[in-house]
Amino acid sequence: MPGAEPVFRYTPEGQSGAARAGRFSTPHGSIQTPAFMTVGTHGAVKAMTPEQLRGTGAEVVLANTYHLSLRPGAELVAKLGGLHDFMRWDGPILTDSGGFQVFSLPDKEIRDRGVKFRNQLDGSSMELTPERAIEAQNTLGADIIMAFDECTPFPADESLARTGVRRTLHWMERCLAAHANPEQALFGIVQGSVYRRLRAECARELVDLDLPGYAIGGVSVGEGHELLCDITSFTAPLLPDHKPRYLMGVGLPEDVLAAIGYGIDLFDCVIPTRYARSASVFTVRGRIRLTHRRYRRDAYPIDPSCDCATCQAGFSRAYLHHLYAANEVLSAMLASVHNVRFYQRLVQGARKAVLAGEFERYQREFLAGYATSPQGSRTARARKGRKAR
Amino acid sequence: MPGAEPVFRYTPEGQSGAARAGRFSTPHGSIQTPAFMTVGTHGAVKAMTPEQLRGTGAEVVLANTYHLSLRPGAELVAKLGGLHDFMRWDGPILTDSGGFQVFSLPDKEIRDRGVKFRNQLDGSSMELTPERAIEAQNTLGADIIMAFDECTPFPADESLARTGVRRTLHWMERCLAAHANPEQALFGIVQGSVYRRLRAECARELVDLDLPGYAIGGVSVGEGHELLCDITSFTAPLLPDHKPRYLMGVGLPEDVLAAIGYGIDLFDCVIPTRYARSASVFTVRGRIRLTHRRYRRDAYPIDPSCDCATCQAGFSRAYLHHLYAANEVLSAMLASVHNVRFYQRLVQGARKAVLAGEFERYQREFLAGYATSPQGSRTARARKGRKAR
Repeated sequence: MPGAEPVFRYTPEGQSGAARAGRFSTPHGSIQTPAFMTVGTHGAVKAMTPEQLRGTGAEVVLANTYHLSLRPGAELVAKLGGLHDFMRWDGPILTDSGGFQVFSLPDKEIRDRGVKFRNQLDGSSMELTPERAIEAQNTLGADIIMAFDECTPFPADESLARTGVRRTLHWMERCLAAHANPEQALFGIVQGSVYRRLRAECARELVDLDLPGYAIGGVSVGEGHELLCDITSFTAPLLPDHKPRYLMGVGLPEDVLAAIGYGIDLFDCVIPTRYARSASVFTVRGRIRLTHRRYRRDAYPIDPSCDCATCQAGFSRAYLHHLYAANEVLSAMLASVHNVRFYQRLVQGARKAVLAGEFERYQREFLAGYATSPQGSRTARARKGRKAR
Repeated sequence: MPGAEPVFRYTPEGQSGAARAGRFSTPHGSIQTPAFMTVGTHGAVKAMTPEQLRGTGAEVVLANTYHLSLRPGAELVAKLGGLHDFMRWDGPILTDSGGFQVFSLPDKEIRDRGVKFRNQLDGSSMELTPERAIEAQNTLGADIIMAFDECTPFPADESLARTGVRRTLHWMERCLAAHANPEQALFGIVQGSVYRRLRAECARELVDLDLPGYAIGGVSVGEGHELLCDITSFTAPLLPDHKPRYLMGVGLPEDVLAAIGYGIDLFDCVIPTRYARSASVFTVRGRIRLTHRRYRRDAYPIDPSCDCATCQAGFSRAYLHHLYAANEVLSAMLASVHNVRFYQRLVQGARKAVLAGEFERYQREFLAGYATSPQGSRTARARKGRKAR
């Protein structure tokens, strides 16, 4: 329909250095960027209801095609009205291709055709191909779906990384050919490991395809903060200004802020919810571990400056310490709300700073207050010990 | 202060047969009766926030003195502002004496002085006495506290039951002498196993003490529905009309309704939350087990007639089936909200029926629709199999 508004549109709203603020429209509402996507692997954010998630300001959820395909199966999700209806989340959803999970399996066999692997649930032999990854995602019905790419491990020599880029580009064309649902935006993924020439080549080829969005993949696989920054700062500017840029699987608050500074718009990571389950919670002064004995009698909320439902309701660190000790699942519930809200505030603050033209100051001030090693962790104690010597 | 309103007052509001409706005032608000108290063993209702609990219409929570005394310790709870502040529940709270848990331990040693037992957390030898049980409850600061009684096991011969009653009455006096906080109502507990003479004797002695409330203990210990009804129907009328009556540890919906019919006002039980964690959920048609394969593709909410947050948000049985299969804690969270609301509706409906003078009809109509063996359970399948033969 000529002249109709495109369903998926990235609207730039501000810039501060290379950092961007914008808005990405989807059939289930628009996403204000920079945005952090909370991970709901099995179609559920761990220990949070969709209502609690919405209460943190989260606008978009990521679900894993690999897990949902094995159980309950994409067809069943479709029969139950699609992923939004199934999980009762009416906002935007992104699904990954399943590639990252399959490439992490021990027994996989990678060929140009696709990847053979063993079903973890019943031991049967399975194959994931670009066509199947797209079909599963078409069936699940998320707003944003991801190309099936070869996620190069770290470290990888240049020849392995080159093969990965070649396959990723080849598979991208097959993904595009298989993609059958115009209500879903198919994002491409830039691979190339730490090799700038490969990243540049991969980005150029993908940009030529004029996709609705671009991801940087093959990061957050053990390369560390410095290399992550190097890859992102080099690759992000190669992507078009008028399309959203998504850094996959990132990361810690300092990683997210650095990447926003390089022009990234979208992030996803299990850290906020996974850390919550192991008693690690974020504060503006740094990360703390609520199981540490120093919190046994601590009447303060997790972060006195926090506006999340957990801190506002007045749950004390001592109460949370007790809940973790007693193995009460309420510990994970309350800490997840807090951590997810912490990440939402982080990116909302970044967005506001970009719109005010002050992103660099925001990042600097955040990092000045924020200690990167957790208080009450072995690392922090060891460091303190070293200082005292 | 003569003429002042007593803090704890039971106000009768209606009667229907022996069933009662009333209101019991406490320093943290009044409880409309009949009421079902949700259990928060460690100072937390499992898999529910206080806000979610409040949303089910629950007015009062039960916490366990035994568990809280071992961890984090009553003194620490007091330092953190008392149990209400600690767990962020501003409504009425009841604590038990810890006796029931100690009497359930394998290595206890019962004497007139008290009960010796082994601390489950660190293996040390401990002793619970009436004085200590009251002191711990005074320190925790609940609105209603329970006498330290001897909970006679089932079955028990009359001589054992007689010793239990003797100790319970003796300990009651020591509890009263030890009780030091007028902002807490100390309830007495009628013991006597299945022996009417003993129940009557115990009730008479306790009534003479003019306590602010009375419990029937030593039930829900394996005696079954018939004996539970027998004990309750005999004992309830022996208790004063102008004091609340609490049937401890009960029970299934059919038990609760029967006991309301005998004049009971207060209940507590772990069933709603414990069953939720093992996928057993209550509906007006009976209990169902969401892990059963029949619910794999079931798009209906747990109970289409239910007004709980889970059913109203449209989570399907198929989604819950999936969450249980994927071991997602959201399953227990959503099912707990449903089950706790089911019990609140059960007692709220009973209250309304009593006020309308129609309790018997309410009970009859509920039971007519409600199947007492769960759909999708082995029992139900076995029964069906037997019928077919």
